[in-house]
Amino acid sequence: MAFIVKKFGGSSVATTAKIVGVAERVLKEKEPDDKIVLVVSAMGDTTDELISMAKAIDNRPSQREMDMLLSTGEQITISLLTMAFQKLGVDAVSLTGGQAGIATSGVHAKARIVDVNPERILAELDKDKIVVVAGFQGVTELGDITTLGRGGSDTTAVALAGALGADICEIFTDVDGVYSADPRVVKDARRMKEITYNEMLEMARLGAVVMQPRSVEMGKHYGVPIHVRSTFTLEQGTIIREEYTMKEREFTIRGVTHDVNVAKVAILGVPDQPGIAYTIFSALAEKAIDVDMIVQSIRNADKKIIDMVFTISKPDVDQAKVLVEKLVKDMGALGVVIDENVAKVSVVGAGMYGSPGIAATMFGALGEAGVNIEVISTSEISISCLIKEDQVKEAVNAIHQKFFKE
Amino acid sequence: MAFIVKKFGGSSVATTAKIVGVAERVLKEKEPDDKIVLVVSAMGDTTDELISMAKAIDNRPSQREMDMLLSTGEQITISLLTMAFQKLGVDAVSLTGGQAGIATSGVHAKARIVDVNPERILAELDKDKIVVVAGFQGVTELGDITTLGRGGSDTTAVALAGALGADICEIFTDVDGVYSADPRVVKDARRMKEITYNEMLEMARLGAVVMQPRSVEMGKHYGVPIHVRSTFTLEQGTIIREEYTMKEREFTIRGVTHDVNVAKVAILGVPDQPGIAYTIFSALAEKAIDVDMIVQSIRNADKKIIDMVFTISKPDVDQAKVLVEKLVKDMGALGVVIDENVAKVSVVGAGMYGSPGIAATMFGALGEAGVNIEVISTSEISISCLIKEDQVKEAVNAIHQKFFKE
Repeated sequence: MAFIVKKFGGSSVATTAKIVGVAERVLKEKEPDDKIVLVVSAMGDTTDELISMAKAIDNRPSQREMDMLLSTGEQITISLLTMAFQKLGVDAVSLTGGQAGIATSGVHAKARIVDVNPERILAELDKDKIVVVAGFQGVTELGDITTLGRGGSDTTAVALAGALGADICEIFTDVDGVYSADPRVVKDARRMKEITYNEMLEMARLGAVVMQPRSVEMGKHYGVPIHVRSTFTLEQGTIIREEYTMKEREFTIRGVTHDVNVAKVAILGVPDQPGIAYTIFSALAEKAIDVDMIVQSIRNADKKIIDMVFTISKPDVDQAKVLVEKLVKDMGALGVVIDENVAKVSVVGAGMYGSPGIAATMFGALGEAGVNIEVISTSEISISCLIKEDQVKEAVNAIHQKFFKE
Repeated sequence: MAFIVKKFGGSSVATTAKIVGVAERVLKEKEPDDKIVLVVSAMGDTTDELISMAKAIDNRPSQREMDMLLSTGEQITISLLTMAFQKLGVDAVSLTGGQAGIATSGVHAKARIVDVNPERILAELDKDKIVVVAGFQGVTELGDITTLGRGGSDTTAVALAGALGADICEIFTDVDGVYSADPRVVKDARRMKEITYNEMLEMARLGAVVMQPRSVEMGKHYGVPIHVRSTFTLEQGTIIREEYTMKEREFTIRGVTHDVNVAKVAILGVPDQPGIAYTIFSALAEKAIDVDMIVQSIRNADKKIIDMVFTISKPDVDQAKVLVEKLVKDMGALGVVIDENVAKVSVVGAGMYGSPGIAATMFGALGEAGVNIEVISTSEISISCLIKEDQVKEAVNAIHQKFFKE
């Protein structure tokens, strides 16, 4: 008997036929006594359709109402998938995030799971039902619906697996595991059998779209192994866990990632006063706008002004623009330039600490490929460079080629 | 200052442009201190689209899952309408049925409102917000989502008006009031300024689609006047209340109604034993299938068998068929015939009790129009005849002509 939480994303449930396919696939792999909890996202384009309805009314709809609107997407999927199981003669029940006991913090559109009360799910499992839970959503103490933001369904799945004490959390996706680089960009990228939470976290943070950082953190927190595998085949993918259990050929780095979902914000001519960085970044944090690479440069020492450059996610650009323009006015800065034509390429590997040659090798690969580096940042297990978005493909291939050549 | 609950149905909110129109209209009529609660249905064809998705998976989906699915329809509308108010600069908040405190009984697809906890709505009104509530839905004690069935949004609106102590409940619809007959069928039907709860109840029960009986009962229970008016004009419609407040020209009857949403079920050769009617109708009641006209006829006194004929709603036919076929087998009856090509025409009026000529006048009108009567039933304030569905139009016109001629 195994206790498994399985998550299927939007493309796996894009049509009613695919939903039936998911139900059939789950039953094919299920052993008689297995306990199965499924977490699903909204069907294919549903979210986009809902967003376009909202935009038809208000170009900047309130996030509380967007959450109310978008959370219907998963609710549609869970009911249809449950019907599919019932049609196949298997008892099943659907639960919204709230019904499944997912308690979230109150930041709309970017809520965090603060608690999981698994009572209802356990009661339904005890009745031998397959439980189908809406991913991406939860409710606040007040009973308001919140969504978890990008990749939220993965987080729901891993958090549930942890709270329920499941053996493993399987994330079904359109790729068949975690690769040394995005296989759509790098032809000879390698699939890994295992990867550690920390490496995966760093790769995810740096743009590997397979898993969102929050869900990997959740797995690390609960110690739940996460199996990233393909929706379309029955073969094994990559298991994310605390430590390796098998030997694989070692390379200095584990992967090359890229992220085009970034924008560069440059606040020019900021008065160089103590507390000015706090003013800027606390204002952004208050609106839950994540800031990544930060570079503070002295422009003119005589005039005591600086430039503050940082990156944010593209979806945050609208909100950040309003906020930063107000900050510029309040601080008496010269202005703000936002550039959405940027991307971040990174190398990741737990073994890179203490290997000083890696940065040089990476910069060399970019230089040879004719790619300019705009901003550089490093962590214990990664090095990242901000470059022009339209040079991503050649940049990633050049770096991958250097590190993963046979 | 007035405290008004306003309900807009699916055709009033069929597109995002119409949703904006509803917001504008509400603001146009709103006095500065008015407290406004809106109840809305799913957008135009949303419900049909959701149903067809479900049918693509299972032709007889479970009703719990259908409720889970269909309740997303209103949730979409409330968020969009709230965005429309916010875009117009007015503070508003959307609430699902559950969030609005609508507690329902557990019969899926046909739940009843058993309680309303108005705390959250009152708290939001105190913050000077317009509150937009999802009609047609509520939650059970377990937290499961239920829908109220046909016309459920009217019931939500009237129940909320009652529980909140609102001054009036306005039902906006595509007709501009209650008529002496359906104006789409009878050209010179008359609009009434007022009608009593009891008359409206009887007309609704007998097929006047303007208001569902359950919502009129709710109004009577709470003593909330219900104003039925047009979405498209600002003029007054018909107010449903306990007693008339103005004098109108009196006719013997108040209205002629028809209902094509009925099916005739004839159980043939039922063994004539005590308790047999209980067996049949308690089985139907258990599945919440409403039974209307009942006629029990002795077919053959020697063989001690009877025929049991009754009418049900067309949407219940599938479920009733399965149930009755099983009953026929268990009881040893001869068989069942279900006829969906029937309709019910009725005359309604509180003053008809003690006017024996009315039945004769009605039957005469039908006879002159060449319409056969299959079943007759009467109440204190109405007389109904079951006829062939394709003769409805001539039947209603013939009756209306007799009673409402100048």
